[in-house]
Amino acid sequence: MPVVGMVGGGQLARMTHQAAIALGVGFRVMATSSTDSAARVCGDVRLGDHRSFDDLRAFGKGPDVLTFDHEHVPTEHLRTLEAEGLTVRPSSGALLHAQDKRVMRDRLAALGMPIPRERAVDSLADVAGLAEQTGWPVVLKSVRGGYDGRGVWPVESPEAARELLERLADVQLMAEEYVDFRRELAVLVARSPHGQAAAYPAVQTVQVDGICREVLAPAPGLDDESAVAAQRLALSVADALGVVGLLAVEMFQTDAGVLINELAMRPHNCGHWTIEGARTSQFEQHLRAVLDLPLGSPGATAPHVVMANVLGGAVEDAASVYARYTHVMAHDPAIRVHFYGKDVRPGRKIGHVTALGNDLDEVRGRAREAAAYLRGEEGR
Amino acid sequence: MPVVGMVGGGQLARMTHQAAIALGVGFRVMATSSTDSAARVCGDVRLGDHRSFDDLRAFGKGPDVLTFDHEHVPTEHLRTLEAEGLTVRPSSGALLHAQDKRVMRDRLAALGMPIPRERAVDSLADVAGLAEQTGWPVVLKSVRGGYDGRGVWPVESPEAARELLERLADVQLMAEEYVDFRRELAVLVARSPHGQAAAYPAVQTVQVDGICREVLAPAPGLDDESAVAAQRLALSVADALGVVGLLAVEMFQTDAGVLINELAMRPHNCGHWTIEGARTSQFEQHLRAVLDLPLGSPGATAPHVVMANVLGGAVEDAASVYARYTHVMAHDPAIRVHFYGKDVRPGRKIGHVTALGNDLDEVRGRAREAAAYLRGEEGR
Repeated sequence: MPVVGMVGGGQLARMTHQAAIALGVGFRVMATSSTDSAARVCGDVRLGDHRSFDDLRAFGKGPDVLTFDHEHVPTEHLRTLEAEGLTVRPSSGALLHAQDKRVMRDRLAALGMPIPRERAVDSLADVAGLAEQTGWPVVLKSVRGGYDGRGVWPVESPEAARELLERLADVQLMAEEYVDFRRELAVLVARSPHGQAAAYPAVQTVQVDGICREVLAPAPGLDDESAVAAQRLALSVADALGVVGLLAVEMFQTDAGVLINELAMRPHNCGHWTIEGARTSQFEQHLRAVLDLPLGSPGATAPHVVMANVLGGAVEDAASVYARYTHVMAHDPAIRVHFYGKDVRPGRKIGHVTALGNDLDEVRGRAREAAAYLRGEEGR
Repeated sequence: MPVVGMVGGGQLARMTHQAAIALGVGFRVMATSSTDSAARVCGDVRLGDHRSFDDLRAFGKGPDVLTFDHEHVPTEHLRTLEAEGLTVRPSSGALLHAQDKRVMRDRLAALGMPIPRERAVDSLADVAGLAEQTGWPVVLKSVRGGYDGRGVWPVESPEAARELLERLADVQLMAEEYVDFRRELAVLVARSPHGQAAAYPAVQTVQVDGICREVLAPAPGLDDESAVAAQRLALSVADALGVVGLLAVEMFQTDAGVLINELAMRPHNCGHWTIEGARTSQFEQHLRAVLDLPLGSPGATAPHVVMANVLGGAVEDAASVYARYTHVMAHDPAIRVHFYGKDVRPGRKIGHVTALGNDLDEVRGRAREAAAYLRGEEGR
């Protein structure tokens, strides 16, 4: 059986490990610490720093395929490993579009894909130039390294922009219009080396303070034509960029249509619902794709599926989270609970819950209630 | 988070590990070899011999609860560990009924439960005595240690019985009537220390040469009254024996009702369909029960679910199984494939497949076809 090596030991690697067990393929993780979420449960863990070329090379030599649970591996290291003959999926050339927002936006613009109006920022004049077209506020973003609301700064005025540019003098920034969206959508697709592709239903993501709180699958009230158009858009991005593995395309839905916001090339929070809610989970799908196995059915297993993230909150120790989780299980025997084995810190994603059923309001209510209770927010 | 220790490193422990990951509880396995099915994937493996008291004691001291993936741990060792204060679930007193068929049958008879006519065998006269009541053939069984068709010998005549008794002079045997059953059913239930219980739908099991080939969930055409009666019977056995964890009750369905055939107190092949086919898998349910967590919903996720075992067959090397499995995935993107990471040997359970849907014939056909193809029997 082939062996997949995943760089990064977070919850995405942890859940990919579960999928690898069923497939019977080998799965090896490179974690930075033995207490990383995946390192606590995987049988085959190597410790290493994903920024170290030597660590990456030592790790990469064993598995048949190298893949990732995050975007933070330096592109140049991956290029060298590829030149040395390692199989890296997604390739460094594809992955760059999930690592560098400027590269991604320039490429999507050249492809004629719908994106927000934006420009590179070398000085305040660039920000002001964009604001002349779009009005204030505008959004400043770090070109590399941002996620979960980090690396994103809405600014209301030239003064606020100047202050931010001074404070972040060492950070490469870009500016984009503040999109007045109706809601956020996401489409997750998988693509194999030989070009087979599969798209999960378009979902709605609900963010609070830049962090995903809920995912509603399928996106409620999205008409068939728009849903299919969103899937087609994601598939065409995957094809154009030569993605192998999963591609998550996060979009703003506006009155004028969708705009592509972010790309990720790995299992993604917008697809956790697929563990119970789709015939093939995103984690298994990623493994199938990077191994060039036939892709699994992305079809939903219920009319409505809602995933809610559990963030470390008012309850800050694992023991009291465990006590709360017995209550959640007793209250709702059909709720699906996933814990990541992570230390509890406020705002940190420590798990998620999934509810499925025929009635969206009931399903969403159950997922929200369980997640809020686990966060210690039930009385608020 | 509490830690569950499971004695035995087979596929049941492997799949329980998957469930423990989602729950976020600790899971430690005692395997006999690092190449055991569960030992290949678990992060927390200790090697030891389940027949060695010292190994069991060393293993048992760490986890909060000790449980099992088979019935082969000597009862006296468990009694001693319990006397030393370890939490063993199911307890030695309950587990004995899954280890010793005489104890089980005597107890069920005393409880007035429906069982085949049978008797202890000390000599040929005992076999002949049973045959006077039931006619030939009769079935001889080893009281301890049999499974998957091993330890079961139908005998057609006094001569055949004599020959077998001579050959098996060292084996403790019992004799039972040859039950003319319509089909075999099984009910899987879970029970917590404080007495909460949950029953999965009654299923039909299809055996070939004493080895389970298929499980149909729910049992096709079983009327509601009989289905509920079978569930009640299994729940009352669990309660009467004080089972904690899972109890699988295998039954013969006859024209006169059901007869209890075998008991198992662990995740069981008759419940593999629950991974995708029930809201809570049997593996998670076992963990919840032995941890005294609230039990999960045992409700089905589809009208029909069929599980088919993949046995090592005409195809005897792992490489060609992998090639076949790519074909199965391509042919049926919605089939669920589970491989156990075991070396392929003829007749050995190396994996299973599960299909779900609305039409029993279609679902069963898909599961059978996939399993047969993986066994290398597609042309037969």
